[in-house]
Amino acid sequence: MVYLYIQNRNNSLMAASYQKYTELIQSIADINYAAALLGWDQETYMPVKGADHRARQLSTLAGLAHEKSTAEELGHILEELIIDPSLNEVQKNNIKHSLHNYRKSKKYNHKFVTTLSRTISEAVSIWQKAKSEANFKAFAPYLERLVELKKQECELLGYKDHPYDALLDEFEPGLLTKDVETLFQDVRTNLVPFVYEIMQRPLADDRILKQYFPKSDQFQLSEHLLRAVGYDFESGRQDISLHPFTVHFGAADVRVTTRIDENDLADMLTGTIHEGGHGLYEQGLPLHAYGLPEGEAVSLGIHESQSRLWENNVGRSRLFWKGMFPVLQNYFPDQFKHSTPDDVFRALNNIRPSLIRVNADELTYHFHIMVRFETEKALLEGSLQVKEIPEFWNSRIKNYLGLNVRDDASGCLQDVHWSHGSFGYFPTYSIGSFYAAQFYTAAVKQVDGLEEQIEAGKFSSLREWLKASIHVHGRLYTARELCERITGEPLNFRHFMDYTRKKYGALYAIE
Amino acid sequence: MVYLYIQNRNNSLMAASYQKYTELIQSIADINYAAALLGWDQETYMPVKGADHRARQLSTLAGLAHEKSTAEELGHILEELIIDPSLNEVQKNNIKHSLHNYRKSKKYNHKFVTTLSRTISEAVSIWQKAKSEANFKAFAPYLERLVELKKQECELLGYKDHPYDALLDEFEPGLLTKDVETLFQDVRTNLVPFVYEIMQRPLADDRILKQYFPKSDQFQLSEHLLRAVGYDFESGRQDISLHPFTVHFGAADVRVTTRIDENDLADMLTGTIHEGGHGLYEQGLPLHAYGLPEGEAVSLGIHESQSRLWENNVGRSRLFWKGMFPVLQNYFPDQFKHSTPDDVFRALNNIRPSLIRVNADELTYHFHIMVRFETEKALLEGSLQVKEIPEFWNSRIKNYLGLNVRDDASGCLQDVHWSHGSFGYFPTYSIGSFYAAQFYTAAVKQVDGLEEQIEAGKFSSLREWLKASIHVHGRLYTARELCERITGEPLNFRHFMDYTRKKYGALYAIE
Repeated sequence: MVYLYIQNRNNSLMAASYQKYTELIQSIADINYAAALLGWDQETYMPVKGADHRARQLSTLAGLAHEKSTAEELGHILEELIIDPSLNEVQKNNIKHSLHNYRKSKKYNHKFVTTLSRTISEAVSIWQKAKSEANFKAFAPYLERLVELKKQECELLGYKDHPYDALLDEFEPGLLTKDVETLFQDVRTNLVPFVYEIMQRPLADDRILKQYFPKSDQFQLSEHLLRAVGYDFESGRQDISLHPFTVHFGAADVRVTTRIDENDLADMLTGTIHEGGHGLYEQGLPLHAYGLPEGEAVSLGIHESQSRLWENNVGRSRLFWKGMFPVLQNYFPDQFKHSTPDDVFRALNNIRPSLIRVNADELTYHFHIMVRFETEKALLEGSLQVKEIPEFWNSRIKNYLGLNVRDDASGCLQDVHWSHGSFGYFPTYSIGSFYAAQFYTAAVKQVDGLEEQIEAGKFSSLREWLKASIHVHGRLYTARELCERITGEPLNFRHFMDYTRKKYGALYAIE
Repeated sequence: MVYLYIQNRNNSLMAASYQKYTELIQSIADINYAAALLGWDQETYMPVKGADHRARQLSTLAGLAHEKSTAEELGHILEELIIDPSLNEVQKNNIKHSLHNYRKSKKYNHKFVTTLSRTISEAVSIWQKAKSEANFKAFAPYLERLVELKKQECELLGYKDHPYDALLDEFEPGLLTKDVETLFQDVRTNLVPFVYEIMQRPLADDRILKQYFPKSDQFQLSEHLLRAVGYDFESGRQDISLHPFTVHFGAADVRVTTRIDENDLADMLTGTIHEGGHGLYEQGLPLHAYGLPEGEAVSLGIHESQSRLWENNVGRSRLFWKGMFPVLQNYFPDQFKHSTPDDVFRALNNIRPSLIRVNADELTYHFHIMVRFETEKALLEGSLQVKEIPEFWNSRIKNYLGLNVRDDASGCLQDVHWSHGSFGYFPTYSIGSFYAAQFYTAAVKQVDGLEEQIEAGKFSSLREWLKASIHVHGRLYTARELCERITGEPLNFRHFMDYTRKKYGALYAIE
C-alpha cells in the first residue's frame, strides 16, 4: 500500500483507499464500455470488411479489462476495505460485490480463459454455417468441447448442489438448479394444461398486423413508443440491427435497437417496447455510480423482468392499446381505418405453438425455455451426450408444444447462446417474465389509479414506481431481497399464473 | 528477455522478437483505434448526455495506450531489433519509426502529459465560450498556459534551429521552420500578386449552387461521388457531422463524414471529395500492416495532398464537371435544367477573400495559413505575447486579404486548433495543396490519357496511380523521399503556381 502521503489517521487512509478502489473499478468500466461501443457499432454501422479488425480490437480490450480486474493492487485494496468498519452501507455493498467478482476472476487461469475464448470464436462461425445447413453433426464436436470446458468451469468456480448452479450464478446470482426445477414444475402443473385449453379455441384474426407497413414510418412509430414510455433520447438512441438489443456505456448513454419487418408490425411493436423496458432500467440506475456495483443491474432475471413487464404486462394489454390506438392510427391511417383497439390487443395475443423461441407467444415461450434448461442440465451433469441432443430436444418439443421438429435449424441449432458458451442464460428469460407479473401486480396495488393512467396512454407513474422500487438501488439488494421488499414475498409463480388466467381466460373464454 | 522457449539460434530468436514487436505495436493500435471509434461516435451518433462518460472513457484509453507505448519491454525489443541485420527493409523501417516514437514518448514525463491534457480539456470549453462571445480576453490566460507548455514541449523534444521545428515535426516529420518560411516567401512573391490581379476581375455567378438542395438528395449524391472516385463502402461508410472528417480503425474500416447545407451545394461537393481523398489514402494502405508504420500514412502533409488533389486538382476542374455534370443533373434535374458543366466549374472557383479559413477559396486559403504560421512562430520564439495576438492577426489579415476583422470570433478565435494545443498543424494544409499540384502534374505526365479519363468521369487510373505511387508504401519513405521518387524533385512551389496560373489565368482572362 502506497498511500503514505495521506496523513496516517485511519479514516483518511481508508477514505483514500475507497477512492482508489473507485478509480480502479471505474477505469475497468471504461474499458468494458469502450468494448461495448465497439460491439454496438459492429451490430449497427460497421462496414462488412471491418470485422477482422474489430475482432482483434475487442480481444485486446477484453484482455486489458481482465488484466485490470485481476490485478494484485485491486485485490489488496478490496481485502482491506471489506473489513473496514467506517464504510457506509452502499460502500460496503460495492466492496462486497467487487471482491466477489475479483475472487471469481482469480479462479480462472490464463490457459482456461484463452482456450475458452478461442473455442467460442471457432464455435460461433461453425454454428452459423451448421445452422444455415441444418447440420447438427458439423457443430457437435465444437459443442462437445464447449460442454467439456463448461464442466471444467463449474469445478473451477465451485457450486452448492449441482454443477449447473455455478453457471446459473453467472447470470442470476444466488439462483440454484433446484429453484428452476421448482418453477418449471409449476409451469408443467399449471401453465401447460391451461395452454392446452387455449389451443382448443380458435385463433384470433391477426391479419390486421400483417399488412404493409413502410420501414421509415415504423421507425418513427417505434421512437414515438419509446418516448411514450419515458425513454430519454438525450441519454440514448435507437438504431436498426438484425436482432434487437440494449447496450449501455453508463446510465447517460443507453442505446436500444429494433428490427423492422415491413409485413408484420408486431415484430417492431413488441421488440421496441421490450428493449425500451431494458433501456429504462439502465437509464434509471444511479448516474453517479458509474461502473460501480451500485450503478449496475441486479441480475439478468431482474433486467428481463423490466423488458417483459413493459412488453407483456403493459404492451400486450387491452388497456395499453386503448390509450395508444390513436397513435397507431396516426402513423398508419389506412391500415387501421376499420379497426378497434381490441383488434390490436387480440392480434398481439394469439397463442400458437411455434418451433422458434424468438417467435413464440408469451405463454408457450416458457415451454421453449424448459426444453433448453432440461438439455443444459442433463449435459452438465453428464446424463446426456452432445450427439443425443437432437433426439432429446425433438421429443420434448413434441411433448410440450405438440410439434414435430422439421430439422435442427428450427430445432436445437436455432439459438446462438451455446456457441457463445452461454449455458445457464436461458432460465433468466422465464424468471424475468415471472418477476414481471409479480412486480406488475404489486405496482397496481401500490400506485393509485395506475391502470387508469395506462389506459389514458400515461406511463410516468409506472415508470417512476419501477425506478424508485428497482432501478435506483443498483445492486444494493439481491434479486430475492428486492422482490421481498417490493412484493412482500420471494418470486412466486402464482402471480404469473393469475395474470395468465385473467387475461387469456377472458380472451379465450376459459372459465 | 524471456523467449527461451524458442530454440537458441539467433535467427529464430530474432524472428520471435519481431513477432513480439508486432504483437505489442498492434495491440497499442487496437487501443488507439478503439478510442478513435469512440471519437467517431461522439461526432456522429452519441446522445448529448453521454459526453461526460465518453470523456473519461477516452481518457482511460489514452492512458492505457501511453502506458503500453512507453513500456520497458517494448523499449528492449526495439533496441535489440534496431541492430538486427537479419530484418528486411520493411521490417527495419518499421523498427526505425517505432523506436523513434518510443524514444519520443519517453521524453514526456507524466507530470507534463497530465498537465497538458488537463489544460487542453479546460481550454477547449473556454475557447468555445470565448468564441461564441467574441471575447479573446477570456481565452487569453488559457492560451498563455498552452503556449508556455508548448515551449516546454519544444525543449523536452529538442529541435534543430528553431523551437517551432519540434512542433512541426509532430505533424510533418522532417519539416523545418525555415522550409515553411521559404514556401511562404514563394507564396508572397508569386501567389499574392496573382490573387490581387484576380480580384480586379468580376466574380463569377455562383447562384447556381445556392439554390435549395434537399438534404437526403445531397447525401445520396455525396455517396455517388464517393463511389465514383473509388471509395469502398465495404471498407467504410459516410455519416453526417458538424465538421467533415475522416477516421480509420485499420485499412478495412475507414469512415468519412460530410456536412450538408441545403442552401449551398458547394459545401457538400467539395467536402465530400476532400474527405474521399483522405479515405482513399487510408483504404489504400497495406491491410496486412495493421497498426505498424508500414500501414500508416507518411505525414499530415501527404495526407492532405491526397484530399486536396481530389478536391481541387480534380473536383474543381473543368474536366471533372464535364464528366460529372450528368450525375448532378440526375440528382437535381430542376436546379440544373438550364445550366452547363462550365457554370458549375466557374461557380466552384470564385476567388473571394473571406475572414474565415474554412470558407476560403483554394488560393486565398494559403494567406490564412501564413497568418497562423507567423503567429505561431512568433509565439513560440517569444517575439509575440498572447495578449498581442488580435492586433498582430488583424494587421496581417488586412495586409494579405485586404479585410478588416470584425471581431475576434471571425479573427484569431475562429479555429479550434490552439485550444487543442495543436501548434505546427496549420502549415500541413498548405503543404498538402502544394504537394497535390506536384503529384497531379506527375500523374498527368505518367498516366496516358489520364485527363481524358477524368473528363469521361472515370477515375480508376488516377486512383490506382496514387495507390501504387503513395498509398501502398505506408511510411516506408519519408515525405521528401516519396516526392522525389514520384516527381523527380523535392516539394517545389512552382507546380502549384503553374497550376494556378493555368487554371485561373484562363478563368479570369489573365495573360
